[in-house]
Amino acid sequence: MKLLRVGSLNREKPAIIDNNGSIKDLSSLISDFNPDTINLNLIETIKKQNLSKLPEIDKNVRVGACVSRPEKFIGIGLNYSAHAKETGTTPPKEPIVFFKSNSSICGPNDTVYLPKKSVKSDWEVELGIIIGQKAKNITEKESMKHIFGYCIVNDISEREYQIERSSGQWDKGKAFDTFGPIGPYIVTKDEITNVQNLNLELKLNEKIMQKGNTDDMIFSVSYLVSYLSYFMTLKPGDIITTGTPPGVGMGRKPQIFLKSGDKMSLKIDILGKQEQKVLSEK
Amino acid sequence: MKLLRVGSLNREKPAIIDNNGSIKDLSSLISDFNPDTINLNLIETIKKQNLSKLPEIDKNVRVGACVSRPEKFIGIGLNYSAHAKETGTTPPKEPIVFFKSNSSICGPNDTVYLPKKSVKSDWEVELGIIIGQKAKNITEKESMKHIFGYCIVNDISEREYQIERSSGQWDKGKAFDTFGPIGPYIVTKDEITNVQNLNLELKLNEKIMQKGNTDDMIFSVSYLVSYLSYFMTLKPGDIITTGTPPGVGMGRKPQIFLKSGDKMSLKIDILGKQEQKVLSEK
Repeated sequence: MKLLRVGSLNREKPAIIDNNGSIKDLSSLISDFNPDTINLNLIETIKKQNLSKLPEIDKNVRVGACVSRPEKFIGIGLNYSAHAKETGTTPPKEPIVFFKSNSSICGPNDTVYLPKKSVKSDWEVELGIIIGQKAKNITEKESMKHIFGYCIVNDISEREYQIERSSGQWDKGKAFDTFGPIGPYIVTKDEITNVQNLNLELKLNEKIMQKGNTDDMIFSVSYLVSYLSYFMTLKPGDIITTGTPPGVGMGRKPQIFLKSGDKMSLKIDILGKQEQKVLSEK
Repeated sequence: MKLLRVGSLNREKPAIIDNNGSIKDLSSLISDFNPDTINLNLIETIKKQNLSKLPEIDKNVRVGACVSRPEKFIGIGLNYSAHAKETGTTPPKEPIVFFKSNSSICGPNDTVYLPKKSVKSDWEVELGIIIGQKAKNITEKESMKHIFGYCIVNDISEREYQIERSSGQWDKGKAFDTFGPIGPYIVTKDEITNVQNLNLELKLNEKIMQKGNTDDMIFSVSYLVSYLSYFMTLKPGDIITTGTPPGVGMGRKPQIFLKSGDKMSLKIDILGKQEQKVLSEK
């Protein structure tokens, strides 16, 4: 199932994409996709619906972030062998964990704003995990049953804030408003046969910048969910963004960063695509 | 005003402490203290109430976290000159920013649990700022009008997770469940004449470990709110914990860390006190 939220900002309705590619309104069934409503039974509940009877929503509607108000938006650093290489760092011995701000979250096709005077904003296409059931101290084998689904995340990062002005703490560069497009939809886990074999791609102005496959992850999806559950309780709706493949602007020679007027296009197998226009904040 | 949330976990009611020190139920006036309900007008609205007519709540009630479900729980690192010194680091040129997990938040007197096999959990008494109005790219002069009030925060930190197992990202050591006691209450800003002159103290098993005053902050409350507003939009209910004075366990010779059975007592002028029993997670 492809679950999404559509409508104007902060007034999104829950919806589903049916087999014909139409958007059907789920608000008669559920109030929203958020920590209070996401749970593993939801998949079965929605499957039982006769989607043809639900109201259709115009395809030109704005698509919002696919989860509303998650408790946590967790980031994993340097999780692709080839990306660790391009940043000139040795692959980490255990997962590097940081937090994205919840206020960075926006819709998959919303405009991305560059902070005033920012000169080093960069892209990162990533696989996002959506938690479906509370997870605390769970084994790697138990991980899959705590996952609700997956989505695309663009973990946009201001490298000067993240590295040069941070005393080493990345969060400052990961937190800006619109730096966390998520979606377009949650693909529930039952639709993904092998989450460790998904192609990821990011284009900047039609030119491919990032290309990778989740088979290059240093720490797998199931490992990450188990690992994190020893450091904090994961809750329904939590988003874990699992690191980026090579090709970020910082790793290029010469380096390339986002500028006003740019267009980013992201896609991941099965998970759809995102497209963001970039503008400087006024 | 002293605003608090009382009752069992996840069923807390909003309340106020009146001039006689009694706890009065505010749930006829407001549903909760959270990002949807906190705003600057609330102070005036509550002031107009005749508190004597509100139902009294038994003093032995559990006190919950003083804010429910904030969007962000932001931490500032090494913000006291004397603490920067004890950790052997040079004072930062600009604020060090990290995030506490929202799932770390607990009541001021709730039991603090040590992670399994954790050997380096540490205390940090801190002044917490509660945002009352959206703040984006604001000047230092404008900061005060965006603040709702203040509270005590214990920014509990597992140093092995934070430093040795982190590849440098602190968040992993700051995120564990119960590592963020906040409260007992929000003291609204109108009751604090000078927020840069508050004594802070933390005792471990009746022995004073931390002692400081907010006048030793490297970056002031008003500076921090303005500064952060350039990296992310601050929203009502957001909590900023502003760094800790000297005396943490990691900075001692020999180092001292929390163990099961310990008792922490924290106090800050005007903001009340916290008291936590420490237990190992089963």
